[in-house]
Order: sequence, then structure tokens, then C-alpha cells
Amino acid sequence: MVSGTHDKGGIMAGNTFGKALTVTTFGESHGTGIGAVIDGCPPELPLCEEDFVTEMARRRPGRGTYDSTRREEDRVEIFSGVFEGLTTGTPIALIIRNRDADSKPYEILQRLFRPGHADYAYFKKYRHFDYRGGGRASARETAARVAAGVVANKILVPLGVTVTAYTVELGGVKASSIDLNTMDQSPFFCPDLAASKKMEAVMKEKKSLGDSLGGIVEILATGCPAGLGEPVFDKLDAELAKAVMSVGAVKGVEIGSGFEAARLTGSQNNDPLGRNGFVSNMAGGILGGVSTGAEILLRAAVKPIPSIHQPQDTLDREGNPATLELSGRFDVSAIPRIHPVLEAMVKLVLADHYLRWKTIID
Amino acid sequence: MVSGTHDKGGIMAGNTFGKALTVTTFGESHGTGIGAVIDGCPPELPLCEEDFVTEMARRRPGRGTYDSTRREEDRVEIFSGVFEGLTTGTPIALIIRNRDADSKPYEILQRLFRPGHADYAYFKKYRHFDYRGGGRASARETAARVAAGVVANKILVPLGVTVTAYTVELGGVKASSIDLNTMDQSPFFCPDLAASKKMEAVMKEKKSLGDSLGGIVEILATGCPAGLGEPVFDKLDAELAKAVMSVGAVKGVEIGSGFEAARLTGSQNNDPLGRNGFVSNMAGGILGGVSTGAEILLRAAVKPIPSIHQPQDTLDREGNPATLELSGRFDVSAIPRIHPVLEAMVKLVLADHYLRWKTIID
Amino acid sequence: MVSGTHDKGGIMAGNTFGKALTVTTFGESHGTGIGAVIDGCPPELPLCEEDFVTEMARRRPGRGTYDSTRREEDRVEIFSGVFEGLTTGTPIALIIRNRDADSKPYEILQRLFRPGHADYAYFKKYRHFDYRGGGRASARETAARVAAGVVANKILVPLGVTVTAYTVELGGVKASSIDLNTMDQSPFFCPDLAASKKMEAVMKEKKSLGDSLGGIVEILATGCPAGLGEPVFDKLDAELAKAVMSVGAVKGVEIGSGFEAARLTGSQNNDPLGRNGFVSNMAGGILGGVSTGAEILLRAAVKPIPSIHQPQDTLDREGNPATLELSGRFDVSAIPRIHPVLEAMVKLVLADHYLRWKTIID
Amino acid sequence: MVSGTHDKGGIMAGNTFGKALTVTTFGESHGTGIGAVIDGCPPELPLCEEDFVTEMARRRPGRGTYDSTRREEDRVEIFSGVFEGLTTGTPIALIIRNRDADSKPYEILQRLFRPGHADYAYFKKYRHFDYRGGGRASARETAARVAAGVVANKILVPLGVTVTAYTVELGGVKASSIDLNTMDQSPFFCPDLAASKKMEAVMKEKKSLGDSLGGIVEILATGCPAGLGEPVFDKLDAELAKAVMSVGAVKGVEIGSGFEAARLTGSQNNDPLGRNGFVSNMAGGILGGVSTGAEILLRAAVKPIPSIHQPQDTLDREGNPATLELSGRFDVSAIPRIHPVLEAMVKLVLADHYLRWKTIID
Repeated sequence: MVSGTHDKGGIMAGNTFGKALTVTTFGESHGTGIGAVIDGCPPELPLCEEDFVTEMARRRPGRGTYDSTRREEDRVEIFSGVFEGLTTGTPIALIIRNRDADSKPYEILQRLFRPGHADYAYFKKYRHFDYRGGGRASARETAARVAAGVVANKILVPLGVTVTAYTVELGGVKASSIDLNTMDQSPFFCPDLAASKKMEAVMKEKKSLGDSLGGIVEILATGCPAGLGEPVFDKLDAELAKAVMSVGAVKGVEIGSGFEAARLTGSQNNDPLGRNGFVSNMAGGILGGVSTGAEILLRAAVKPIPSIHQPQDTLDREGNPATLELSGRFDVSAIPRIHPVLEAMVKLVLADHYLRWKTIID
Repeated sequence: MVSGTHDKGGIMAGNTFGKALTVTTFGESHGTGIGAVIDGCPPELPLCEEDFVTEMARRRPGRGTYDSTRREEDRVEIFSGVFEGLTTGTPIALIIRNRDADSKPYEILQRLFRPGHADYAYFKKYRHFDYRGGGRASARETAARVAAGVVANKILVPLGVTVTAYTVELGGVKASSIDLNTMDQSPFFCPDLAASKKMEAVMKEKKSLGDSLGGIVEILATGCPAGLGEPVFDKLDAELAKAVMSVGAVKGVEIGSGFEAARLTGSQNNDPLGRNGFVSNMAGGILGGVSTGAEILLRAAVKPIPSIHQPQDTLDREGNPATLELSGRFDVSAIPRIHPVLEAMVKLVLADHYLRWKTIID
Repeated sequence: MVSGTHDKGGIMAGNTFGKALTVTTFGESHGTGIGAVIDGCPPELPLCEEDFVTEMARRRPGRGTYDSTRREEDRVEIFSGVFEGLTTGTPIALIIRNRDADSKPYEILQRLFRPGHADYAYFKKYRHFDYRGGGRASARETAARVAAGVVANKILVPLGVTVTAYTVELGGVKASSIDLNTMDQSPFFCPDLAASKKMEAVMKEKKSLGDSLGGIVEILATGCPAGLGEPVFDKLDAELAKAVMSVGAVKGVEIGSGFEAARLTGSQNNDPLGRNGFVSNMAGGILGGVSTGAEILLRAAVKPIPSIHQPQDTLDREGNPATLELSGRFDVSAIPRIHPVLEAMVKLVLADHYLRWKTIID
Repeated sequence: MVSGTHDKGGIMAGNTFGKALTVTTFGESHGTGIGAVIDGCPPELPLCEEDFVTEMARRRPGRGTYDSTRREEDRVEIFSGVFEGLTTGTPIALIIRNRDADSKPYEILQRLFRPGHADYAYFKKYRHFDYRGGGRASARETAARVAAGVVANKILVPLGVTVTAYTVELGGVKASSIDLNTMDQSPFFCPDLAASKKMEAVMKEKKSLGDSLGGIVEILATGCPAGLGEPVFDKLDAELAKAVMSVGAVKGVEIGSGFEAARLTGSQNNDPLGRNGFVSNMAGGILGGVSTGAEILLRAAVKPIPSIHQPQDTLDREGNPATLELSGRFDVSAIPRIHPVLEAMVKLVLADHYLRWKTIID
């Protein structure tokens, strides 16, 4: 009696993030555009369209040598929730129209699954999906997250919280020192300029081969008060892990000493407390799921971009073997365009947890 | 006008996990007991108290040489939701009473913060908390998760899904081969018996020094159908990351090639598709946040137990430096007692996502 | 240490409705426009912009003698979630731009609170809000609900569910018979044409006095399968009550025999079961919070429009007494423009509960 | 491939209520017992088991002439979340064991559906359910709500909020005056003692006939600050409507002038504002979904108890006509035992919304 159509349905499609401060994103890479609705933002915060320009530009493609050549202005339109330059406490809808969406190179995706991409899984789940440019799975979706992060930041700035992402590894080259003052001089926002030079060489080489590269991004949050996070399932580190892992290219996340902690003893990994607080920060600023007031430090493992200019073995929708040769505009690495996305996700978690526990005890 | 009392309040305390299948846990280490309410479980699944015995025994302390000597029977009482041996679709409340709760060794915690533990962060957040045995932050809370995992498993078994955790690294010793058939012969459920022997030596040494050890646990889910997970924020890997990271001792989580992916090129990290599906499994069974039908593979970095028998620098509640010398019953490592907890969290995520998307297409 | 700005914040602002099928609305009466994001809609349902025209027209002002003269085309733009004419299972963003928004008459609202409106309560809650045309509290917000209801209806139609609202009382005149075939001949969609004539006379009179009128709307859902609704808090009638009461003008809601049940005995109010199911329908199609398969019947009490053209005693923002004389474009009654809004809310609840419990047993 | 067993499953079974302060109830009428988990309660509120005695006694059966003779002590055990007499901010689990559960009279329910009860709808939804004493649909479930309301009250008392329910109609007899000081002298907590006498006569008569009676309960909340409630879907009145309608016997709910508003004009129904605030209270203390600071007033229509001692036409599980003759212990009316339940639901909504918007301005 019930139409089979519905039975295929995915439910609770999980496009909303957060509890007190919620973000719902929508839109496809090659549709009309993308957007976000932020609900739960306090009233009386100053917000205007210019506030989005810098962050959107950091994520936007088409600036550097190793980026896709797609040109998107990524202008954010504030559709609602702001009156006379101030937030009103009502939902803030942000809209970003697609402009330079060239669907041509994606026609092949009507037939073939791209290795390393969502195509195969989506086909199994939905049958019908927008294959153009990856549709909802496209990195373009992250522009809506960056825009939402700008709003979250408006909540964090008065608290003195800053969130900064930087590259600590790229194509196998590790940063061996970290001087955040120099990172802007690196095309990858790597705070070790010597390492950055080596990264550049690897990037050039892989680009010439039509291949791509992964890396590791560290995210540092300073000024975060003690007390954020909930003790059991909604631990601050658990929520950050979900936030960071929900970014498409991320395959691993660690807090503080992270995987290295697995090789240490308790006496090495515990942070002693002295008169000025924690003497070390192996914990990465979070204990028992609650922020301690120390710097919050996490790292994300970013996989190499799956779209490469080399032929790949795959299947077509009927299950027949085929060879995929992609043309189109691809980045060599998700780094550094992923930085503002990761920062935005961290900001959203911190602002959400701040609003979930509004009164910070000193 | 508003009482300051409330302003200290944490809200949405995050003791509920899942969307379609929800688990709410409660209870403290040294209170009356702990428990869980599972809501959203389908009706007509067979469930009785005996079903919990094996899993609870795997997590229970006091069995091995390297465990705490606390003795808990950990009998699970089915308080509601089951009638004539079958679930009814109504909430399943599970209760586990504390028996051997010796609060004596914890009196010192009224005064001093334990490095590596939640004490300091909790004090900043709540002021008033149950310090005995770590209260809500205690590993004892995980018994409720294991019990809930037994219920989740009842949903997964008819689908042919199995979830298995095993040790791949302990105290710096790595497993170099994986033969799951042998893991039961290892006290750490390490599937490389030669490595297990070396792990045992390290464990003995650290135990004698009153120190503790971390390690890495791999969790393998087989038989999971394609289509689980939602494309954006509720990606299956993001939800698994949160689930695993919400277990107290975990400091890092990775899926498939994980942090190694950061060092690979796209042509190395992409899994080609052949006539029989994926030729490799660098993705760990998840692409674009959706399961592909391949094995799901993730790893958790487990930090060394922070309770050690060595003197540690710390502060008292008034902020004065002090030396903490803990007596009490501590494990040398959270491994392998953490295995059933990690399995339970993975089962809860898979069952939840299965119920969120009930009709599996082929 | 914490900025006072945030402390004024409302959180979890409640602009999302539903669990499996969620609707998030945004926008203000006199801002850029309004909109809705529908998440959780199954894929492969046909949906195009023309599908919205009829329903939007039913709610749109400026058609009848007793309506506001504001002219809005209320064209719904499908911004995302539809590809090649079919839903994809991703979020469906709908956008409706404001066109004929004349803010002039609302300038007085910068100073004075309108009796019967949200102004005073909003001022107490937010201090800063968009007073133009009622901002978020405007009836205009309901256009987004009607649009969302069109999507919900796409889920219900294949199930054979229909939802119809009609007027059973207006300005004190009651319908004494109900013939749904005739309701389209009544300007108030009253299914008793004789009563409708009398209603028209009362409307004319009150309009000439600059006053307004309330009424009662009945909503009938047919074809709804047994089994929708959850036993305790999310009873189908409880969810319907919230849905209907969340429409601004509604002050009361009743199911089946409703308030009349308070005057009956059990032997009168119980519906006996016979070979063909329920012999009567005092229950209104819901027992124990779960649909029985009988027709679902509820009634909403709609208060008179608070905007009237008579002088009213009020206060200004400084607390000084003042007299409010409103100019502007007001309906005489929220009936019948509220009909499609109430239908939409009922459709959203039924579709949500259908997706929460996908498999209908026969 | 997927087991049919799961496909029957209800999901998101809706046993959790609230957002910032959540209550999850569990348990069946004739199982081990019932209970509630309250999450999100602020720390440092005094709470002990004696705090529950008075409220539980008000709901408990077996006190009056018109009550069921089931004897339940209804002792509430605080299982978690309280330490040294104060809440800790962690989940508060409350357990109430069933004692005098006589399942004998319910054996007939294995075969026959009771008119006016959930049996038929549950059978259609779950197939397998605990029929004894109504299982989860039993009024006994409301004991868990009353217990949770005691916790909510601990949040409201420091704010000066009081919530009081009283009978304004019973068996067709209406209270014509309201003097809350006298209500304790009425067996139905009717604040008009003359009316109460008449109600008593009707009750006696119907009891002798084996029939039952409905009525109307008014709930008054005083001291509630302006600013509670969210503008769109989570309007305070919408949430109250859901809360009240989620109590099994309630078939209608109205706020302020309620259904009467449908018969008034705008000039009659609007509350003018004077120097001391609202001059009247037709709005029932809520405008635009947000509390105004005036008294909150709502009414619930309570249907007659469906369990009666008269023969009723019904069906058996195979669909054959049958006559049901119930023995057992039934109340003549849900009034007044429903009072503490309705108060509890209102308290839960107010406390939840207070915590959702913690800082009350002024």
C-alpha cells in the first residue's frame, strides 16, 4: 500500500549541526547556489555582508598556482536575521549564488563512479542525485560552513577566543618549528618557512604528474574559558572530532598528544598543575571532555584530493569495468583552502558550547 | 532577580547519544549505580538479562593481572521495555548497581586535582560534583554504554553486521601482522601473538614502576550495507569519530588510511573499483560520509591511564601547589578493557544510522 | 568577563519543526524575504515551482474584500534539493522574496506597543528586533510554512492522505451542517452556505467599524493509516496541538470531541468497535497518541486580528501611556487565509510521523 | 535482505521531552516499575527523596472515594545526579517501583481491544506490546512526569514561579467563581465550593452506574518573567499545548480567552496596556509565543475515563465482534488526580524555556 518511492528515503538527513547555535546548510555545487541558516545567534551583534569577505576569500578557489581555476566571487547575501546592522536573535539565512558553474566536465559522472569520491556510495543510497560537480558532496558545500563560522566568530570575539589553522605537514614534508608570525609568507600557511619551500617543490612535482597530495593541519584555539563541553557523549573533544571529521577530506583527528599518547606512559602524558595552571599541555586543553582554560590544540589528517588527471579503474552504473579520465579544474591539495573550513567548524563547536553553558565562572 | 544558582547551570548536558536509536546514560561511579535508557529500539527483538553477561564481563575490572582489583558483578537489570522476552518498542531501561564501591581512596580528591583527570575542569564548570571515583567521568560510566551496545547489536545481528576491536599497539609495541583467530590467546586481544608477548613485558615493567601505558585499538565492522551515513554533518565517519572520541581515554581517531593518507598521493590513496567492488580499502569503507559496503575500519589512540602510583605536582582547590600520591585500584592500561566500550559505541552508531535509513537497497 | 551582549541571547530559537522531516523557517515581513529549508525529504519525488502556486495563492493577501491590500506574488523559488524535476534527498531550500513591503505604517511601532501583538513581549526578550510589519512575528512568516506543506504533501499523496480545513464558526455564527462539496462557494470556505451568508453580514459590519473577528477552523485528515504517533510525549495529538497552536492567531485546539468530552460520560465518549472498525469517532482518529485509521479531526480557535482601526490604550518603550491609532492594511479576520497554514502544519506533522515510522502495517 | 522484524520498528519513540531541560521516561504499569531521567538540571540545587512525597501523594491512586483501589506507595528513589543533598548537573535518574500490580484483570486484554483506550492503535503499530494495565499507555506513566516536575519546580521556585491546577468543570457542572483559598476543601480541588457539592452528586450517580466523567482543569502560572518562549514553532503556548495534550486523557487545550476568543472582536480581545502593565489578560500571559509577565492561564479538557463497568461492543485481535466487560479498579474521573500531572508538564515547559533563555531582562 505504501509507495516504494518513500521507502528509499533517507531521513534525518543530518544537514543541521549544533544544539544551542544550530547551522543548517543547503545547496549543490552546480545548482542555484548554496546557503546556511544559523539559528540561536544572540541578538545585538553587529553583522554585515562585508564581514564575510575575508574568510570567503581564504576558501575561494582560483587564487593560487595549485588551485582549481573555477572563479567564484562567493559573495554572501544576508537574507534575514539582521536589522539596522545588528543581529535580532532570529534565524540568519545566508545565501551564496553559484556563478562559474561549468557542468560540462561532469557529464561523464552520469555514467562512471569516481574512485575516492562519494559517487558510488550516493548511488547506493539515493539512486537519484545531482552528480554535477559532486552536488552536495562537493567541497563547494564548505563555503556555507565558512560563512556560518563568521557568525560564530562574532560570538567568540568578545570572549577573547581566537581560532587559527596552519599546515604542519604537506606531501610528507613536516614543519619542524612553529612560528605563527611567519605563516602568512607561506603559500600553504605553514609556520615553518624552510619546510614550506620543500612542500612547494613536492606540490610542483605532483601537479606536473596530474596527481594530488594530502597533509596535516593543526588548529589552535586560544582564550577559550574553562568549562566548555559536556562530560559524557558531548565531550568537547568528541564534538570537535565530529566537526572536523565532517569535512569531506579529513580522515583522522587527534587532540593534544593524540596518537603519540598511545606511546607514552601516564607519568609522561599527564600535565602537572603548578601555580600558573598546567605546566604542559599534552591534553590539548581538554580533560574529561571539558575545556581546562589551556590552549585547545587539535590536528586533522587531510587526504589527497581524489580528483586526479591520471586514468583510474572504475565501474559504470551498470557495474561494467571502465577507465575514468577526468578533465576539469582540480586543486593539487585541499591544503590550504581547507584551513578556513576547519577553523569555521571549530568556531561553531566552541560558540555552540559557550551558548549551551552561558555563564563562564571566571 | 534571577538566582545566581541557576546561572551556574550547564544545560543540554549531552547525556543522550543518537537520533533514531537514542541512548541516555546516568549514574556515578560510587553512587547507587549506573544505567541507560535506550529509546527507539524496534519491537519484537528477543532480549533477556543473560544477553548482557558476556559483554559486561569483557569490560569488568578485576579479571587480569593488569586490572584494578575492584570487583563488580555488573549484572544488568532490564527495568522496562521488554515483555515476555521480546522488546516492545518502548524505552528499555537498564540498571547496574554499584557493589564494591570503596570511596576511601578518593577522599583526597575533595582537596586535590588529579593531573590527567577531569577534576580540574569539572571544578571550573560545576563547583559541586561527585568526586568519588571520578563520579560521572569515571570509566565505570562506560559499563552503561556496553550494556546499550548489547541492545544495538540485536538490531545489527540480523543484518549480518559484526563489530570487533583488537589491539594493534600497546606501550609502543606494534602488531605487525593481524590474525583475528589468534587474538583470544593474547591478554590484550592483540592479533599478533609475538607482539603480544613483547607488550606483556612492557606492561610488567611499567606496573612495577607504578606507571601506566597507552595503545592503539583497531575496530573492524564487517557486513555493513552500503548507504549508511548522511552527506554533510552526520557523515558516518564523523559520527563514528564523535562516538569513539567520547570514550574518556581516547585522544585520536582515524578512518581507513587515516593519518597515513596525509602522506600519500591521490593515485595511491584512491580505491579503484573492479568487477567485485573496491580493489583496495584505503577509504575504510566510507566515502563522502556514506558506507560503501566495504569493511569499515577505524583506529582509536588510547592514552595511558592518568591514575598512577607516582607522586605528581598539582594544586588544591584553593590554588596552592601540592603533591598528589594516589593509592587505590588502577589498571595499568585501559587496554583491553576499552575494547567492548569501543565496539559498543560503533554498534550504536551503525544501528542508529540503520534505523535512520531503514530500507537498505540491495 | 563575559560580555553582557551575549547574556541577552535567546538560544535554541525554535525555528525548526519536526524530527524526521524537519522544516526550518527564516525571514522577516519587511526584510529581503522569507524562506524554509526542508530536510529529510525522501528522494525521487517530483517537485517543481509550479507545485506551489495554488497553495501560496490561497494564503496570499489582497484577493478578497476582507483582506489586507498588500500585494505579494509569493513566488516560491526552489533554491536547492531538486535535480531534473525530482527531489534528491538533500535539503530543499525555498525562497520567497518580499516585494510590496511598505514599512511606512510601521514607523509608529518603533515607539508604541500594539495590544494583542508580540511587540511588548519581543521588546522584553530581545530589546533589538525588526518591528517593521511585525518582523518575524508577522503572519507573513506563515507563507514559508505553506510552502513547506506543499513538500510534505508530496509525501502524503501517495499514501492517500488528504488534509482539508474549513470554517465552522466566524464572528459567533456557527455552521450547523457540513457539506464539503459546497465550501468553495463560501468566501470563508464554510461548508454551510446559509451560515456563510450570515458570517458575511457580520464581517461587513465589523469592517465598517474598523474592528476584527475570530472564528473556529476544523481540519480533517482522511486516509491516514493506523500507527502514526508515539505513545508518551510525542503523541500524534500532542504534536498536532503544538503545530496548530504555533500559528500566531490560534488560542485553542481540540481533537475529536474535544472540550465537549469534558461534559460526556465514558459510555458516551468511548467509540465502540464493530466489524467495520470504529462505529463512532469521538476520539478524532487518535487513541493513546497513535492514529487508529479513522478520520483525524481537530479544531482550532482563531482569535480576532489584533490590528484594528480603533484607538487603543498602550505604552511607549519608555513606559508612558499613549494612544495607538493604526493605519495600514489589515484583514478583518485571519479566516480564511489561515486555512492553508493550518493544513500545512497538519501535513508536516503527518509526514514527519510517517517518516518516523516508515513501515505502515497494512 | 533486511529482516522484516526491524521494518516494524517505531523510531524516535518520543519518550524524551524538552530541549535544555530534558526528561526521558520509561517503564510500564505492570512491569518492574517506572522512572525518569532528567538531564540538563543545573547543579547545586537541594534535592532529596522527601521532596517527592507530597506531589506523588497527590497523584497516587487509592485515596478517595472515586479512585481506583490500587495501592502504590510511589516512593521515588533518586538513583543518580545528587551528591551530598545537592544536584550535580549530571543526569538525575528517578525510579519508582511497582508494588501492587495486579495483572489478573487485564488478561482479557490479550484478546479484546478496550474502546477509548490505546489497545487497538498499539496493536496496529507494534503488534507486540505489554497489555497489562495499559503498559506504557497507562496513567501510571504519569507518575514519572510528576516526579520530574518536582525537579523542574526546584528551578522555578527561586524565580518566584508557582503553578496551580484546579477544577473548573466536572460532569457538566461549572465553577462560577474562583477562590483558590477554598479549593483544598473540595475533593476535586474545585475553587467554587457550591459547585463542588453538585459535582460530588454527579460523581456519586455515575459511579453507581459504572460510568465515568470528564471535566475541565485550569492551570495558573504566576510569577513567570516576560521573555520565555520562542517566536515561531516553539512558541510558549505551542509548547504548553503539546505538554498538556501529551497527557493521555486530555482532548483539548486553550490559552487565555481560548475558544471564546473565536467569538470576540479585536477590540474586545486585545489587552490594553496601562501604566501598571496589561489592563486585562485575554491573552493568558503569552503574546507572539512569548510570555509577557502577566499570569499564564490555560485550560485542559479531560475526557471521561474510558474504563467503565458497563458492557461495550468491541473486536478481538482476529477482528471478531465481542462484548467487553471490564472488572478491575478504575477511577470515576481522571480529575483530580490529573492535577499534579498537568502542573508537572507546565513546570517542565517553563523550566525548560527558562534554561533555554537564561538571562531574564528586568
